[in-house]
Amino acid sequence: MLDELKEEVCRRNRELSLYGLVAWTSGNLSGRDPETGLVVIKPSGVLYEEMEPEDMVVVDMDGRVVEGRLRPSVDLPHHLFLYRNLPDVGGMAHTHSPYATSFAALGRPIPVYLTSIADLFGGPIPCARFATNLGDDIGRAILEAKGRGPAVLLKNHGVWTFGRNPKEALRAAVMVEEVAKTCHLALLLGRPEELPPEEVERWWDRYHTRYGQDV
Amino acid sequence: MLDELKEEVCRRNRELSLYGLVAWTSGNLSGRDPETGLVVIKPSGVLYEEMEPEDMVVVDMDGRVVEGRLRPSVDLPHHLFLYRNLPDVGGMAHTHSPYATSFAALGRPIPVYLTSIADLFGGPIPCARFATNLGDDIGRAILEAKGRGPAVLLKNHGVWTFGRNPKEALRAAVMVEEVAKTCHLALLLGRPEELPPEEVERWWDRYHTRYGQDV
Amino acid sequence: MLDELKEEVCRRNRELSLYGLVAWTSGNLSGRDPETGLVVIKPSGVLYEEMEPEDMVVVDMDGRVVEGRLRPSVDLPHHLFLYRNLPDVGGMAHTHSPYATSFAALGRPIPVYLTSIADLFGGPIPCARFATNLGDDIGRAILEAKGRGPAVLLKNHGVWTFGRNPKEALRAAVMVEEVAKTCHLALLLGRPEELPPEEVERWWDRYHTRYGQDV
Amino acid sequence: MLDELKEEVCRRNRELSLYGLVAWTSGNLSGRDPETGLVVIKPSGVLYEEMEPEDMVVVDMDGRVVEGRLRPSVDLPHHLFLYRNLPDVGGMAHTHSPYATSFAALGRPIPVYLTSIADLFGGPIPCARFATNLGDDIGRAILEAKGRGPAVLLKNHGVWTFGRNPKEALRAAVMVEEVAKTCHLALLLGRPEELPPEEVERWWDRYHTRYGQDV
Repeated sequence: MLDELKEEVCRRNRELSLYGLVAWTSGNLSGRDPETGLVVIKPSGVLYEEMEPEDMVVVDMDGRVVEGRLRPSVDLPHHLFLYRNLPDVGGMAHTHSPYATSFAALGRPIPVYLTSIADLFGGPIPCARFATNLGDDIGRAILEAKGRGPAVLLKNHGVWTFGRNPKEALRAAVMVEEVAKTCHLALLLGRPEELPPEEVERWWDRYHTRYGQDV
Repeated sequence: MLDELKEEVCRRNRELSLYGLVAWTSGNLSGRDPETGLVVIKPSGVLYEEMEPEDMVVVDMDGRVVEGRLRPSVDLPHHLFLYRNLPDVGGMAHTHSPYATSFAALGRPIPVYLTSIADLFGGPIPCARFATNLGDDIGRAILEAKGRGPAVLLKNHGVWTFGRNPKEALRAAVMVEEVAKTCHLALLLGRPEELPPEEVERWWDRYHTRYGQDV
Repeated sequence: MLDELKEEVCRRNRELSLYGLVAWTSGNLSGRDPETGLVVIKPSGVLYEEMEPEDMVVVDMDGRVVEGRLRPSVDLPHHLFLYRNLPDVGGMAHTHSPYATSFAALGRPIPVYLTSIADLFGGPIPCARFATNLGDDIGRAILEAKGRGPAVLLKNHGVWTFGRNPKEALRAAVMVEEVAKTCHLALLLGRPEELPPEEVERWWDRYHTRYGQDV
Repeated sequence: MLDELKEEVCRRNRELSLYGLVAWTSGNLSGRDPETGLVVIKPSGVLYEEMEPEDMVVVDMDGRVVEGRLRPSVDLPHHLFLYRNLPDVGGMAHTHSPYATSFAALGRPIPVYLTSIADLFGGPIPCARFATNLGDDIGRAILEAKGRGPAVLLKNHGVWTFGRNPKEALRAAVMVEEVAKTCHLALLLGRPEELPPEEVERWWDRYHTRYGQDV
């Protein structure tokens, strides 16, 4: 039964829009079913507000449509490439959110200027090299750049985020834009200092051991 | 029966406001009926939230009001001039959305700093020379500047966008503001590199052949 | 019967908040009844979302409360001073909207960089000298700076706008923030050219003779 | 009966999100019951939109959970340290709102560039030294920096605000972001002048004696 995952993927795609991370139809989020390994993804070029769970597209790891009347996102091959290479990942989002993408436009990582970057990202948010849209180039570039944190910027392009499930991928997409905005604003006024590595560990550690609820 | 087009033009005008592209009454969107050649346009100086389909103004290609109790947008002559010169266009929008207009204020095109600009615009977003509000000057300036993409900036003025129908004109108005914002933010931090022409073709091509659904 | 004016003043104060021009309780809008000369104004320190028409305060031109259980805005004396000196004005708004106030913080007028500034403001948007909160100093500073347009910036302080009625004062408050934002963004990227005086006249003239509906 | 305070703390936490001051779950607000001295605080890592009053956590001054099924905010020790040292404070909020945090990223206070800063903050908004998340370091750093105003920036981290109750702490969180945004925008265009000390007193005094209603 993939119905729950289709509902969840639809909801989190809609939330990309509600959180202001995407414009028109430009972004997509997917989830992987841990039991069957099937992937559920947004249909291509459909407005978030007009999508329903039954519009989600279910594909196998070779990209064959298993369920759904619509064409999947054109970024599906990159989602599949990354799922194949990242066995712990169960959700991914791709956006062009403006502040994060302004760093990406310059091929520039986001340093650890803030405790909130240490919390969730555990180091600088890396920026992948420019990748063309042919074959697995986008997936490879992201994989080369990825660190322990759940976000990678894509040069001249946008943002890719990861999670154990769709909700966590959405969280990373929300937070990368928030910290990118704050760092952008700070860089316009001066030169922020980076947190030293031991401080980064301390915040990452607290966030990953004591933050949130046991669910 | 123009009732459907009046509903559509009303809806897309309201969405100019919902997407944050216009302030108060400052922007307008029109559609052309492919069968009769009649044009439906926003009434002048009416708030988006207070407009109903029956408030839309229907005019012929000479600007004579065929249907409607209200005066049409003062920009009607420019819409008509452009429809006369662009037979494939079925929808146009005019906004002063802030980020795109900040480039326009400087008479500055937006280079292809992002794959999303290559996708929809297929090259730099051009900026027309300054045009006065007399006669066909605005329409002529836009026509001189227009490339294959669906948006033209207007020096010291604003934005004009095109589509095969009102929805596509709205999409271009949304996307030109989004990419303008991202490029603006990038330019404040550094000097982005432009995509090389063959890369622009690759993204434009993918977007125009494989993106979206067949409808 | 001031009931209609109380409803209108309440509605337009709430819209200051809906349009994002005020934070918490920091801004106020008033209207003058053309028949009795009584002024209706926002109560002091009350949240826009929690205000009802019966919370509006009705005062005479000497500031005596004629109707209402609440204390009027602390800016009431400035509203009254300006109504006394501007017989054609029937509505005024005071905000600290961020983009317009960023020019005010610098004591800097907003030049006519955009046709939309020529349309509604008919010239540069002036910035008054710094005024203290004692006596009529704020009103006097605004009066000294005011041109034919419906907005004045206040050095290190905020924005004051005018109209024949509360709705027009709100419109000016919305539009001054919109054009301030666009000019701010343009100034970060370069040096916009000002419209020449004859062009300013042409847009001001079109806007004041052919724009909108006869109501 | 702490039910009212739990409702109030829940509502004001939700408003942190509605006012755009927090992203995802990153911020928290607490209130102190004047009779029992018990503190009510947001649960850790819960989304604002999904919180109900019964999810709030009630603790005593040693941090023992008195009521509630969920874990309290990881920032609870800092709230308790500050309540112990600030007997008049009955509400506190912690955010990472982007404009205020951009000053914090640089370890930079916000000078009195605006009358609205004099009104509520009564002087420059101070920035505390960087504090690690161990023991009472965050609380101590805030206490060292705090002036008479209800907000302190935290270097490379965020914002802390105070009030006699949760609503006032929220107000300070809203206003510190608003004035930070306006000052940020002004600093991008030029060098604003600070208000002289006697002027600061005049606005602070008016705001604290004549503003608002007697409730």
